[in-house]
Amino acid sequence: MAADQLPGDSRFFRRSGPFTLERILEATGAEAPGAVTLGTSFVGVAPLHAAGPQHISFLDNRRYLPLLKETKAGAVVLGPAFVDKTPEGCTALVSREPYLAWSRVARLFHPLPPAQAKQHPTAFIGENVIIGEQVEIGPFAVIGDGVQIGNGCVIGAHATVGDHVVLGDGCRIGAHVTLSHALLGERVILYPGARIGQDGFGFAVGPDGFESVPQLGRVILEDGVEIGANSTVDRGSMRDTVIGAGTRIDNLVQIGHNARLGRCCIVVSQAGVSGSTEIEDFVTIAAQAGLIGHIHIGRKARIGAQCGVMNDVEAGADVIGSPAMPFREFFRNVATLRKLSRK
Amino acid sequence: MAADQLPGDSRFFRRSGPFTLERILEATGAEAPGAVTLGTSFVGVAPLHAAGPQHISFLDNRRYLPLLKETKAGAVVLGPAFVDKTPEGCTALVSREPYLAWSRVARLFHPLPPAQAKQHPTAFIGENVIIGEQVEIGPFAVIGDGVQIGNGCVIGAHATVGDHVVLGDGCRIGAHVTLSHALLGERVILYPGARIGQDGFGFAVGPDGFESVPQLGRVILEDGVEIGANSTVDRGSMRDTVIGAGTRIDNLVQIGHNARLGRCCIVVSQAGVSGSTEIEDFVTIAAQAGLIGHIHIGRKARIGAQCGVMNDVEAGADVIGSPAMPFREFFRNVATLRKLSRK
Amino acid sequence: MAADQLPGDSRFFRRSGPFTLERILEATGAEAPGAVTLGTSFVGVAPLHAAGPQHISFLDNRRYLPLLKETKAGAVVLGPAFVDKTPEGCTALVSREPYLAWSRVARLFHPLPPAQAKQHPTAFIGENVIIGEQVEIGPFAVIGDGVQIGNGCVIGAHATVGDHVVLGDGCRIGAHVTLSHALLGERVILYPGARIGQDGFGFAVGPDGFESVPQLGRVILEDGVEIGANSTVDRGSMRDTVIGAGTRIDNLVQIGHNARLGRCCIVVSQAGVSGSTEIEDFVTIAAQAGLIGHIHIGRKARIGAQCGVMNDVEAGADVIGSPAMPFREFFRNVATLRKLSRK
Repeated sequence: MAADQLPGDSRFFRRSGPFTLERILEATGAEAPGAVTLGTSFVGVAPLHAAGPQHISFLDNRRYLPLLKETKAGAVVLGPAFVDKTPEGCTALVSREPYLAWSRVARLFHPLPPAQAKQHPTAFIGENVIIGEQVEIGPFAVIGDGVQIGNGCVIGAHATVGDHVVLGDGCRIGAHVTLSHALLGERVILYPGARIGQDGFGFAVGPDGFESVPQLGRVILEDGVEIGANSTVDRGSMRDTVIGAGTRIDNLVQIGHNARLGRCCIVVSQAGVSGSTEIEDFVTIAAQAGLIGHIHIGRKARIGAQCGVMNDVEAGADVIGSPAMPFREFFRNVATLRKLSRK
Repeated sequence: MAADQLPGDSRFFRRSGPFTLERILEATGAEAPGAVTLGTSFVGVAPLHAAGPQHISFLDNRRYLPLLKETKAGAVVLGPAFVDKTPEGCTALVSREPYLAWSRVARLFHPLPPAQAKQHPTAFIGENVIIGEQVEIGPFAVIGDGVQIGNGCVIGAHATVGDHVVLGDGCRIGAHVTLSHALLGERVILYPGARIGQDGFGFAVGPDGFESVPQLGRVILEDGVEIGANSTVDRGSMRDTVIGAGTRIDNLVQIGHNARLGRCCIVVSQAGVSGSTEIEDFVTIAAQAGLIGHIHIGRKARIGAQCGVMNDVEAGADVIGSPAMPFREFFRNVATLRKLSRK
Repeated sequence: MAADQLPGDSRFFRRSGPFTLERILEATGAEAPGAVTLGTSFVGVAPLHAAGPQHISFLDNRRYLPLLKETKAGAVVLGPAFVDKTPEGCTALVSREPYLAWSRVARLFHPLPPAQAKQHPTAFIGENVIIGEQVEIGPFAVIGDGVQIGNGCVIGAHATVGDHVVLGDGCRIGAHVTLSHALLGERVILYPGARIGQDGFGFAVGPDGFESVPQLGRVILEDGVEIGANSTVDRGSMRDTVIGAGTRIDNLVQIGHNARLGRCCIVVSQAGVSGSTEIEDFVTIAAQAGLIGHIHIGRKARIGAQCGVMNDVEAGADVIGSPAMPFREFFRNVATLRKLSRK
């Protein structure tokens, strides 16, 4: 059980290669300005301290420069600023977007296994289900009546897909996911234990206690949305809960009914968005932040970790604190209070 | 995948009706003071902006008055204050509890499907199980030995009900729920992925590390309790963890061992109640609030979002902040600090 | 459905005994200085207020002294400070570690059921699986190809163990757990709905939106680790996510990719540790605290509830607040601000 062998343990990860430097440059769009031996062949990726001459490594944080200096890696993906720090014998693979280039190198050596056209014999498939080509359905999965599954989808073990749910091409539904009352675009990924489409938290006070208000909306997950493990997305009450294309939601996040997130938002672990709140494109919500209901968050706003947002946030604003305030104000407050307490 | 068609997509929701105005008034207890054409028939519910003459709509928030003015809805449920804002041709359905009346209209058109007397052939039922009438058990559900299931219960796909658990009449256990060491009253609803009855977080320091303390209590969920998706309720150690009748718990909430919640409490998403804390009736705990263990929260207290409660809270108090303090004090503090920082 | 009968409801808990006082003293290491009737026999454990002459009870908190005074318990486990408060007829079982002694008494009367050598006929076992002796596999469990399961393991209903996962002896995998890309030591316990080994939250910005960065590390759970219900532990990206021996993680906790926790740490409910953060041995992280990524927490540090940790924390430090600061400073700030606001 020794930790820290090379990444990509072959028991768990598919492996491809070796690849020539040319193939790697092509895949990444990086350049190798240092006039290197073309035709060199690489077998995989590794961190700076563990890489050997046949590995490609990566640097994007100044604080790891000491490791770069001593690396035995055959090549390193990095930004232009670090090229001249590359040790002799190591090829600099230079990219203006080094993390993206690195991601593609890693994917080249460790491609995602494609969906296989097989339904596990223990899966339960309802009536009038439409299943595309190359669809993989795992053990004990439950596919409800009238479900539509696009080409190349993977449905994990024990996943439950409710009646009439629609999945676009290339979706991956993790093990133990519950999915109902929902329409999914293409390439949507749901991680294990995500709960999508259950009733929102809505009730009226009746004479004998609370009475549940019918939750009559759906969940719309647009193309490329990803939702983390054990996160919950409630369906809408009178309109739909919508997660815009490309938005990434981490683990243990709550999205309340009728909420709307725009395109390419990021919602980090344990954050929560209350019902009917609207979030424009490219918004980042850091870990454990909470947004009350019925507010509006402008495009490209950034909500800091543990922030408590009780009011609208303007486009492009950076807020933090509980209640939320501009970053500068928050840290000025912290400094002021510290000074006053020391008196 | 267009969002925002009318609510109640017939693929996902059962539909009833049409209903006459008389039937609707009877179901809701609302009144139609405006001398309307009795016998008018309605086909469903819709939001103000999307409703047509055959739909019933709803207003309870002043900020949507502009939508009321332009609505094409045949009738609108609203409170007495808004009656004279209702446009011509639209019938005002007036209620002193408009949200409750609205809830009942929506339920009338979209009744909850009743439990069907069927056990899915893939479900696994243990020995000496007592199953009431009209009980529905989903695919791959696991019902342990000696379980008692009341009339009209629904057990979802992949739910696991541990040995000797007791369910009163009309309970609904969601997909992927884990339920053990528990006694449930009537009409208890557990949403997908809720975990009820596992060991509490209790251990002593022994010579070779931590040693788990046996958790010998149970979970008692009284009549009408609802527990949200992926929430966790640990069983007690020496006494029971108890959730009082009618209490509603949202998604991703943690309830520690031996905690006791009274009747008709509300616990919003991602809040946490630590072990052995006692909460009286009608308490509201807002999202992401946390309560330490062994404290007492008085009747009708309200705990604000992200509040960190380290001490007892008196009946009827409103607290917020971390550490918790009265609402007024919290916002005065915020204002004071802002003023001092600007100097 | 009456709450608060004696603990250890025989429907849910295995029961052993009766045991003599000698046997109990031997199991716990406690002493009975009060010259008691040896040979007395006890049938179980009970809280002070409910115990009778045949029960053993427990006191470790001064605030329950009034209950001690009136208890009918035959014996009470307690620390030396409370011996002279024990009422007549009640035997004081004195231990310098009363909670540990108590834990062992309770375990004596309510032993954990050992694993039974049985595979449920509905479980699905892949190819080339190595299963040790006395292994119990529950209904609808899925065991992937090449999995190794040590002696005495229990795999719960609906658990999914991914290909090539390794489990040491004596592990207990709860119902509905998802486990992949992981190596487990001995006696690891995963509570229901825990998600271990899924992709970390890593992506680069590409021309058409976010592109996932391959997550090529594993999860290593060392001996005796416990992970609570619905908690999530992501696998590493380039190195492993590691949880050190004996560490206890509560419910709904998030552990990000590449994070490392040392030995015997405690992480309480709803806390979150971001990616690549390193935590030394014996660290306590209280409920709802959050740690950003790439920081270092020294040995025996204590992070308070709801704390927001943005920087390294020194060994032995006590911090609280958001942003984190020393306990004393935090409470001084609270007092200062209160005073200033009242002016």
